[in-house]
Amino acid sequence: MKFSVFLPDPKKVPDSALIWLSGLTCNEENFILKSGFAHHMADSNTMIICPDTSPRDLNLACEHESYDFGSWAGFYVNATTKDFKDNYNMYDYINTEIYNLVTKFFKIKATKISIFWHSMGGHWALIIWLNNPEKYQSISAFSPIVNPINAPWGKKAFEWYLGSNKKDWEKYDATVLLQKWNVHKKLILIDQGTNDDFLKSELLTNNLQKAADLSQQKIQINMREWYDHSYYFISTFLGNHIDFHLQHLK
Amino acid sequence: MKFSVFLPDPKKVPDSALIWLSGLTCNEENFILKSGFAHHMADSNTMIICPDTSPRDLNLACEHESYDFGSWAGFYVNATTKDFKDNYNMYDYINTEIYNLVTKFFKIKATKISIFWHSMGGHWALIIWLNNPEKYQSISAFSPIVNPINAPWGKKAFEWYLGSNKKDWEKYDATVLLQKWNVHKKLILIDQGTNDDFLKSELLTNNLQKAADLSQQKIQINMREWYDHSYYFISTFLGNHIDFHLQHLK
Repeated sequence: MKFSVFLPDPKKVPDSALIWLSGLTCNEENFILKSGFAHHMADSNTMIICPDTSPRDLNLACEHESYDFGSWAGFYVNATTKDFKDNYNMYDYINTEIYNLVTKFFKIKATKISIFWHSMGGHWALIIWLNNPEKYQSISAFSPIVNPINAPWGKKAFEWYLGSNKKDWEKYDATVLLQKWNVHKKLILIDQGTNDDFLKSELLTNNLQKAADLSQQKIQINMREWYDHSYYFISTFLGNHIDFHLQHLK
Repeated sequence: MKFSVFLPDPKKVPDSALIWLSGLTCNEENFILKSGFAHHMADSNTMIICPDTSPRDLNLACEHESYDFGSWAGFYVNATTKDFKDNYNMYDYINTEIYNLVTKFFKIKATKISIFWHSMGGHWALIIWLNNPEKYQSISAFSPIVNPINAPWGKKAFEWYLGSNKKDWEKYDATVLLQKWNVHKKLILIDQGTNDDFLKSELLTNNLQKAADLSQQKIQINMREWYDHSYYFISTFLGNHIDFHLQHLK
């Protein structure tokens, strides 16, 4: 498994770490190459780590047939189906392996880690955060998938990774978790473009807003007029998100 | 021919334009995707236009055999050899076609255009500027090729595009032009990484510095410790270059 790392100073141990989770069709390079992150990090001593979005080079059934399932599309779940359970354990990969790498190899204190993400990365990070309220200091998202059990991408991926029992899907759905009152005391920060082609069919941002209102989860969803699902959108508002995390990591 | 454009506001005519010329192995997309330029442009009403680095899809002799000649490597010259003279006229493409596009289609005033570039783009922009002192308001460069007639990339490309008479190469060599006292009254701004793998064999920055000293051309070459030839280097110092041009374009 490959990942990209930004280290502010190769001679110093960073004070804190940001984990970035990419979306469909991305790998460990997109954020580092396309987001323009570096300027926003110039005055901090914070590292960034960007894992890949799926296992690679396995040639499992259907793994390479479409952009929204298999390779490039691990959906950050632990698969339970026969074909995928041995290899597609992205939930553990991020929350255990990458986390341990950050704390042990890069020597970041356990209280100094935050996560942010784009699109497919969103549902995972929301879930891990709601289920592990002390593990990460803050989370934020660009254009997150927030209710995958009700969206074509999510239904397809969950059926193949988790099987056909929809009850098994719910633990990977942030809107469902909020409806069950798995509320976090800290604010969730989200930026979403209004011209995002996937907003109404796949991301379902409104469903998360409604669940947050009902459960009284603090949430700030900035709807950005004209913006789409791309890294141009991310790069425009990335500074706000990095500042938000650096405040929490101080 | 493809090019990328950044327009600050689709509803307004920009006040001025920056032309970016990319290097070997690049096309019209690299700068837009990888440089992180947008933050530096936020308070200006200046457009950016990024042409491709060569003609495409021609299947001429040797055009696709190496990264440093033919496709991806037009070297911004007007070819004179039999195989390339009909199609490889990148000098005119930039200085006439792109220039006319900027002034006529995008309606930028002729006194409000500057150019900057990376690596291979460098020798062209220096030359056009030294030969057309009023046409562009300012120039700057990252890691430019400055003395191609004495470097392997330049020798190979010039032999194939211009023939074996080395006298014909000199009009495309900035160091030679400065030695001939084609001096410009304005400052040339250059940033160069000291860990750039191509510095000593291909770029020959010192030769330009020497020629500038002899001809009394004003030049500022910032040697940046640790930095290499990549877009990480460009993105680090791009803000300084954009500010430099915006001052000249005011």
